[in-house]
Amino acid sequence: MSVLNETHDPALQSWVESANHATTDFPVQNLPFGVFRPQGSGDAFRGGVAIGDQIVDLVALQAAGLYDGLAAGALDACTDTSLNRFMGMGAQAWSALRLALSRSLRSGSAHEATVRACLLPQAQAEYALPARIGDYTDFYTSIHHATNIGRLFRPDNPLMPNYRWVPIGYHGRSSSLNVSGTDFKRPQGQIKLPEAEQPVFGPCRRLDYELEVGVFIGTGNPQGQPVPMAEAEAHVFGLCILNDWSARDIQAWEYQPLGPFLSKNFASTLSPWIVTLEALAPYRSAWSRPEGDPQPLPYLDSARNRSEGGFDLQLEVLLETAQMRKQGQAPFRLALSNFDHSYWTVAQMVAHHTVNGCNLQPGDFLGSGTMSGPQPGSEGALIERTQGGKEPVVLENGETRTFLEDGDRIIMRAWCQNDRTRRIGLGEVSSTVLPA
Amino acid sequence: MSVLNETHDPALQSWVESANHATTDFPVQNLPFGVFRPQGSGDAFRGGVAIGDQIVDLVALQAAGLYDGLAAGALDACTDTSLNRFMGMGAQAWSALRLALSRSLRSGSAHEATVRACLLPQAQAEYALPARIGDYTDFYTSIHHATNIGRLFRPDNPLMPNYRWVPIGYHGRSSSLNVSGTDFKRPQGQIKLPEAEQPVFGPCRRLDYELEVGVFIGTGNPQGQPVPMAEAEAHVFGLCILNDWSARDIQAWEYQPLGPFLSKNFASTLSPWIVTLEALAPYRSAWSRPEGDPQPLPYLDSARNRSEGGFDLQLEVLLETAQMRKQGQAPFRLALSNFDHSYWTVAQMVAHHTVNGCNLQPGDFLGSGTMSGPQPGSEGALIERTQGGKEPVVLENGETRTFLEDGDRIIMRAWCQNDRTRRIGLGEVSSTVLPA
Repeated sequence: MSVLNETHDPALQSWVESANHATTDFPVQNLPFGVFRPQGSGDAFRGGVAIGDQIVDLVALQAAGLYDGLAAGALDACTDTSLNRFMGMGAQAWSALRLALSRSLRSGSAHEATVRACLLPQAQAEYALPARIGDYTDFYTSIHHATNIGRLFRPDNPLMPNYRWVPIGYHGRSSSLNVSGTDFKRPQGQIKLPEAEQPVFGPCRRLDYELEVGVFIGTGNPQGQPVPMAEAEAHVFGLCILNDWSARDIQAWEYQPLGPFLSKNFASTLSPWIVTLEALAPYRSAWSRPEGDPQPLPYLDSARNRSEGGFDLQLEVLLETAQMRKQGQAPFRLALSNFDHSYWTVAQMVAHHTVNGCNLQPGDFLGSGTMSGPQPGSEGALIERTQGGKEPVVLENGETRTFLEDGDRIIMRAWCQNDRTRRIGLGEVSSTVLPA
Repeated sequence: MSVLNETHDPALQSWVESANHATTDFPVQNLPFGVFRPQGSGDAFRGGVAIGDQIVDLVALQAAGLYDGLAAGALDACTDTSLNRFMGMGAQAWSALRLALSRSLRSGSAHEATVRACLLPQAQAEYALPARIGDYTDFYTSIHHATNIGRLFRPDNPLMPNYRWVPIGYHGRSSSLNVSGTDFKRPQGQIKLPEAEQPVFGPCRRLDYELEVGVFIGTGNPQGQPVPMAEAEAHVFGLCILNDWSARDIQAWEYQPLGPFLSKNFASTLSPWIVTLEALAPYRSAWSRPEGDPQPLPYLDSARNRSEGGFDLQLEVLLETAQMRKQGQAPFRLALSNFDHSYWTVAQMVAHHTVNGCNLQPGDFLGSGTMSGPQPGSEGALIERTQGGKEPVVLENGETRTFLEDGDRIIMRAWCQNDRTRRIGLGEVSSTVLPA
């Protein structure tokens, strides 16, 4: 049995009881990496691996000295305050450590007593961003989102002629990326109301979320050396969830001709766990173009990308208003979508990003762009769901929303699930809008 | 005499002979900071200060133990491999170290023998970027450039209605920023020729430079806390020269709707020395709006910005072709411009960037945008100078250029000069185009 098949075997159980529940995002088949510390401890952040409702503390695990060879070297890199060094070691090292952890965490493992002493309940942890993110690039890979939002910003010209040829992306702000749980103030800025002659300054009135998949780069490439499609996924460490908060009124006024800037860079929020591409292997999907659309240029094409370039990854957005919190009501689902709606794959993002010689570095971060689907209810942003604020969403408790209000908490979740193997989840990202 | 006036006194001479030449960029009145090591040594990079044609090695100077108090603490921070820690210490620390260095380097200083032992000729040094640049933002502050290039990309709509209200900027790529002397390969990418139905893939055919002023952020601001105009310049460490290489054909096809991406992020080149705002104090200039243009919104306005928000900083672009190098011909001047052509000031860039709560960090980098002036010969990019490639530049040796050819070396220089005080230069940035 290959390493891949061994770690994915749906029959595997863990001695961590919560990892065996059907609804957990983190069975022993997953083993996502993150950076944490005991809540309120003020300790240094360190690498961890989620298992059920627990975290394996990788500093404690390293001290236990269970592993040798490549897995031991990889484990050592996970004792840093961020995972950049581990990410830069490459797929063999990631795989070696994941296999060692899988074996240690399975029911019947001789390591049980030792590793049990390295566990911390997730409820007692606080997280940091899993990597120092040198550069953050946001793509725009859902053609449904591009068309929906294009229609609102440019009714006469919704989808640009380049869209079906170029995996459109732009650089984002690294410094204001935050880990889940970090709240943020409603941004202020220049807003030009449709009927006004001049802009005014004030708090954003059209605050929105964007449902995105985040991609962490593992190994980089030297400047001047493109990454070909055949090697692109070997440079990808794994996926998380990204909420790319957006100030639509600031965006509409500022974005021409150089793209969004202050409408985006006040805050973006990431889920704390990175699920490796290896863990997601059972949920890869074929990728193709709709009938009649152009095929990608050769530098964006490969047989493997067509056969399994996609991810059958479900994506959900939930809203918890201040009133719901007060009254103990469950969050309201605003959207259910899937990463398979992407018009471009992760491999194509990497190949395109580097084709001009641009260098990626370990820990760099890519966003998929808002992952809207074709059908109602799969819109990844309020501006799409409410038709630009014209059709309010009516929540279960009778409240309505066109855009976000102060106190609103947005929760995003992502998971892979089918009948053939174990559910693999990305966990969740949540953050609350504070007053300006 | 104030510290500022003391270090600027045009009568000051240095015991470093070359610092007293009228043409040097680096008299004792300047004292710019950078990061260097002896060429080919493989030593760790460390902080240095340029004086005439020499560098004061700040690791060696610290070991000499000449300073105490704030200057000693600041000097210690300059022994790191990058200047981020020093930059984060703030204007008092920068000023204290500059004053101590000024006193040590003046003719008659008791420190002469000690500091002389810390000198390395610039000709024997190699440089690194002076800071780890977390985030790089490129602005678009010359209205002449925005109009010239807007006319080429959008003949019907050259200057966007937001331009006179919003200091337009966008995020750039940090990883591909290089120090002067780093050559780069001509990028490849998708290009759609005007008459073609579909894009092709290949080497850029319209490779261009952009003449910009670079701004290094010193102290940062916490996320969610804007920097008001009154405090904006206290967050700025200093200025350098930036060549923001641009692939115009890739740009024209990719840039809508989210802005330039692969057309810019293959390489940008920075001059190695950062001239502090303190050193530039004698060359500050009044800033105002052309008659009839709107005044800035209050968050972008201050009396001090109007009275001295600008910089009378001359900017020059030179081209050295492979043939010129072979035949020993002098480089050809392509442009002479001035930072005073900027429609927005450095303080306005900082205030705007942070007004939504976006956090700047020590070592972050801002580009001014291409600094074209109003008159012919002051265009900061070939696309402007050649009217989009329609009117070739005829060089002195008979060669012509519409865009850059392989082997072309672009040299940019910047300096302040008037009759009242010493010339203060930023040095130069140069880099050569290698074949794709």
